[in-house]
Amino acid sequence: MSLEILTIKGSEVISKLAIVGGTHGNEFTGIYLLKKWEKRLALVQRSSFDTEMLFANPNAFNENKRYVDHDLNRCFEQSQLEDTSLASAEQVRAKEINQLLGPKGAARVDFIIDLHTTTSNMGPTLLLTQKGDFYNQLAAYITMKMPDVIVSCDEDHKDNSEHHFLSSIAPNSVMVEVGPVPQSVIRQDVYDASEEMTFHILDFVELYNLNDVPKLPETVTAYRFIESITLPLTEDGRRNGMIHKDIQDKDFTEIKPGQALFKTFDGKTICYQGEKSVYGSFINEAAYYDNNLAMSLLEKITLTTYSE
Amino acid sequence: MSLEILTIKGSEVISKLAIVGGTHGNEFTGIYLLKKWEKRLALVQRSSFDTEMLFANPNAFNENKRYVDHDLNRCFEQSQLEDTSLASAEQVRAKEINQLLGPKGAARVDFIIDLHTTTSNMGPTLLLTQKGDFYNQLAAYITMKMPDVIVSCDEDHKDNSEHHFLSSIAPNSVMVEVGPVPQSVIRQDVYDASEEMTFHILDFVELYNLNDVPKLPETVTAYRFIESITLPLTEDGRRNGMIHKDIQDKDFTEIKPGQALFKTFDGKTICYQGEKSVYGSFINEAAYYDNNLAMSLLEKITLTTYSE
Repeated sequence: MSLEILTIKGSEVISKLAIVGGTHGNEFTGIYLLKKWEKRLALVQRSSFDTEMLFANPNAFNENKRYVDHDLNRCFEQSQLEDTSLASAEQVRAKEINQLLGPKGAARVDFIIDLHTTTSNMGPTLLLTQKGDFYNQLAAYITMKMPDVIVSCDEDHKDNSEHHFLSSIAPNSVMVEVGPVPQSVIRQDVYDASEEMTFHILDFVELYNLNDVPKLPETVTAYRFIESITLPLTEDGRRNGMIHKDIQDKDFTEIKPGQALFKTFDGKTICYQGEKSVYGSFINEAAYYDNNLAMSLLEKITLTTYSE
Repeated sequence: MSLEILTIKGSEVISKLAIVGGTHGNEFTGIYLLKKWEKRLALVQRSSFDTEMLFANPNAFNENKRYVDHDLNRCFEQSQLEDTSLASAEQVRAKEINQLLGPKGAARVDFIIDLHTTTSNMGPTLLLTQKGDFYNQLAAYITMKMPDVIVSCDEDHKDNSEHHFLSSIAPNSVMVEVGPVPQSVIRQDVYDASEEMTFHILDFVELYNLNDVPKLPETVTAYRFIESITLPLTEDGRRNGMIHKDIQDKDFTEIKPGQALFKTFDGKTICYQGEKSVYGSFINEAAYYDNNLAMSLLEKITLTTYSE
């Protein structure tokens, strides 16, 4: 068990890192952090790598919407990037971004930090979409420095080329996801937490590059995505209920069998029918109404910082 | 001091009442309450008046935006309604609604309840835009039935014809304003409070019509609008700061001279410079970013329920 086993994808060290904000045009926090850091580059520069910044979807920001035509953060599967017939505002922008930071599979940039916010009460969340000792140690480092950070894993078993997230352009990436904050609003607490978490990620990459990662806690509690569940719907697919007040704001809190999840508009309570406890995230996230998603269900897991 | 002096504008009793939702297309609460009540009319019917319901801006709802072209709730000045050259989506819709519920000045409907939500932490707020014993008693009744309701007054000294709110079509009106809830989200607590307050308003109108208003508290604490203040701006008018975390969520809490109001993006704190205490509302309301408004400032007042 040693630090030498720590490996990343692509090159041995991270030479080029990109911080992305405004992938969703009404998530103001990342956009305004970029504006700040562009004026004060030293805040995001470190000695061992180059940092660049990208405002991903200014058109959506100008329209004060999450996206103009399609969710930009669902446009980065390799097959979508190669399909020139896909020509909506975001499908075109995805190809541009792939040119700027990628191309995916042979990317110019080694690491992407993508800044997001949520209307859900998730607190400062580090979202991992890849597995490995590097990410487990990153999670251990961030939670050591910033104990209120929650680590949430959504590392499905797809090859990176099949990932649809913007951050999947680079071989290595994380997402910063902080809430609650309404769409199109800046809350100082969310803004400050997003900045602090980003600085810790930059610091960890620096320590990794310099082979100077300190001794870390051996395990980290995290939550791994199982499935999304939908709001109650009528037979013809219209919303027929809302998140129950007993589960509202209870992200990353245990959902036991029988827990009230929904209240239908005609007054019925719908409870969780699973056989074992789970945990929720993105509970009542505004952007998920498009698809009538109510929340994600997760299992509590332990990440091991050092391989056996 | 007696109940006989209680008077309203227009007719002696309220014969026709309209409940309006979705004046802002991304304030889902009122829209979904209307859907519910349309299926269960008895909930909003009372013996002494007719209740009708209007979904004010379905086009904005379909686009998941506050409005398509203009804020509908700023389109109802008499002069705007008469100006046929004003032909944006909302300017046209305002004229339609004026036909449906008005016309303003000689309206078919005696009373409008307009349902709104806010991203600010205002709790359930009864917004009064008109003065008079009727409204003071209504406020006393609502706060007696629902003690967490805040009464906020924005009864400027304009003639009703100069009011730009939708609700000004009718000679009598109130607005139900509940938060915090993000745009495009239904929170059960906000939904339930909006429904409960609406029912109490309907009950009060019924009691008024039947000359059966009970004995009420003699005074009611309320907050009266003084002015709106803007976010910190650069010389060329761009946002240069945010609501300070010390004032975030502190709607209707005393703002003393020296209270931190804003944090600029370059780290400066801007404090309240007034000489006497005020109170804030609509603190960090998402919709107000369009005009870079930060919050409303109000003075604490006492409404007297019975005239001398």
